[in-house]
Amino acid sequence: MKLLYPTSLKLDIKSLDGFSVELHPYDVKKTIPEELIDAEILVTWTNSAENLKDAAGRMKKLRWIQSLAAGPNDVLGAGFDPSKITVTTGSGLHDHTVAEHALGLLLNAARRFYEMRDYQLQGKWPGHLGGPQPDRPAGAFTTLRDARVLIWGFGNIAKTLTPHLVGLGADVRGIARRRGVRDGIEVYGEDSLPELLPETDALVMILPGSDATRHALNAERLKLLPKHAWIVNVGRGTSVDEDALVSALEKGEIGGAALDVFETEPLPEPSKLWKAPNTIVSPHAAGGRPQGAEALIADNLRRFRAGQDLKNVI
Amino acid sequence: MKLLYPTSLKLDIKSLDGFSVELHPYDVKKTIPEELIDAEILVTWTNSAENLKDAAGRMKKLRWIQSLAAGPNDVLGAGFDPSKITVTTGSGLHDHTVAEHALGLLLNAARRFYEMRDYQLQGKWPGHLGGPQPDRPAGAFTTLRDARVLIWGFGNIAKTLTPHLVGLGADVRGIARRRGVRDGIEVYGEDSLPELLPETDALVMILPGSDATRHALNAERLKLLPKHAWIVNVGRGTSVDEDALVSALEKGEIGGAALDVFETEPLPEPSKLWKAPNTIVSPHAAGGRPQGAEALIADNLRRFRAGQDLKNVI
Repeated sequence: MKLLYPTSLKLDIKSLDGFSVELHPYDVKKTIPEELIDAEILVTWTNSAENLKDAAGRMKKLRWIQSLAAGPNDVLGAGFDPSKITVTTGSGLHDHTVAEHALGLLLNAARRFYEMRDYQLQGKWPGHLGGPQPDRPAGAFTTLRDARVLIWGFGNIAKTLTPHLVGLGADVRGIARRRGVRDGIEVYGEDSLPELLPETDALVMILPGSDATRHALNAERLKLLPKHAWIVNVGRGTSVDEDALVSALEKGEIGGAALDVFETEPLPEPSKLWKAPNTIVSPHAAGGRPQGAEALIADNLRRFRAGQDLKNVI
Repeated sequence: MKLLYPTSLKLDIKSLDGFSVELHPYDVKKTIPEELIDAEILVTWTNSAENLKDAAGRMKKLRWIQSLAAGPNDVLGAGFDPSKITVTTGSGLHDHTVAEHALGLLLNAARRFYEMRDYQLQGKWPGHLGGPQPDRPAGAFTTLRDARVLIWGFGNIAKTLTPHLVGLGADVRGIARRRGVRDGIEVYGEDSLPELLPETDALVMILPGSDATRHALNAERLKLLPKHAWIVNVGRGTSVDEDALVSALEKGEIGGAALDVFETEPLPEPSKLWKAPNTIVSPHAAGGRPQGAEALIADNLRRFRAGQDLKNVI
């Protein structure tokens, strides 16, 4: 039995030894070589569309694809036969790194580092952002201390992010399909948005991309946010109606937006988000660095060999 | 007995009642009115130099000044008679807010938000900062996870900052006059700098301003840092030799500098720091928002009335 692992990231391959499986590296940007085409297991990371399409056509013995991406849309759209092939995701491998980026964006917004940068580039001292300032004034998002942070999409990334926010003094609440108290945080259903959004200083979006989440944050819901509220999106760009967001930003109906994801990436040149007031454009940089991939692959490889259910099955 | 409190910040004055002391507000930008000149206690916050100089000459009954600043250089230089007047600082009132700002600057550096901003202002997508990236590559400061953070000036702000860094996975060590293990962190003396600086990914400076700390970070010590190391300064600008720092930045001898304090503030227009590569200019914005002032004043007021030692005596 052969497992093909990608050379597009550093993996400690020794930690996958011991399963009586042949481990072979492959180049994710080229088609799979003939001598490896009979592999049963394919690990993917940043594969080219051509590589995946070709593999879907030629890898007749393939039974399992382990993607290292949290949302492996590339694999799902490549034409693999779902009746024969199990696809597992890299969910969990990006929790820490996405949470860190989200925290950074929140502090960038609260401490207005983006505005300081604009002044710096002009050689000007932004005196209004420094020196004596009011502490936690009402109607402003200036610190995470006592800030009301609402996390929409309360999964593993949210659970990783929350302790950092709580540690800094934030009051965190969540929105998810499954409501209840999770890790000490009250998690509500989307039907509670009309009550929760008006009480939010910072809305962190960590929704996956799907038809169900498309434009979840729309004009109507944006209007429910306080005028000073910030939006941070580290989920998927499609979950926000960008036209409605631009309008809200331009009219000053919300405090600002720190976006790592967009409806179209790279963000197209004509997008009004580039120059919208109090808007931070981050180039889908929150994740992209899987951490702990070997442990996930090894665990799933053991399960696969033992005929047990795999983790992170789509 | 009269206590004068400043109107330059919001104080919950009711929480100072109960000490048989008359509480009077005053304007820190004007001279003290004649009817209040016999006060024994003066609380200061962003007082004008004229106000303090005038008070030093006219307040003959003054016995105690409670500054809300962490380093009340304004009060110390105003001419009050130290043989008659005790000065206490606002040490502790800025721990949280300075720690939050320092954390924000560290994430700004690691996640390169400043560089993303430069691209955004040109309407360009900084693709090299997003998408798939190497995880924790050697010779780069790209995340706090596993980053070796050295905090120089390991006092209360450092103790507040450290749990956030440790929570994000950083390996934290400290430098202070008093060595030993503090809150689980190994704190070394300055004589260990030659060993510690070469093992540092991010150096956080939280030194007070004094003759002893002047140019503590000089050319010689800058040379000991790895080429990728960042410097974050939220202490006092005088602790860094800015000419040596500019030289190190321009030559690429260090990774970058995120500075909230400067030798001269506002940063003068001719300073080369404005345009030095990988340099973040923050306008002395870390603190400036005293938190918990009422509790400190009340505690010291009780001690004062009881004839006990005050807290935070200079």
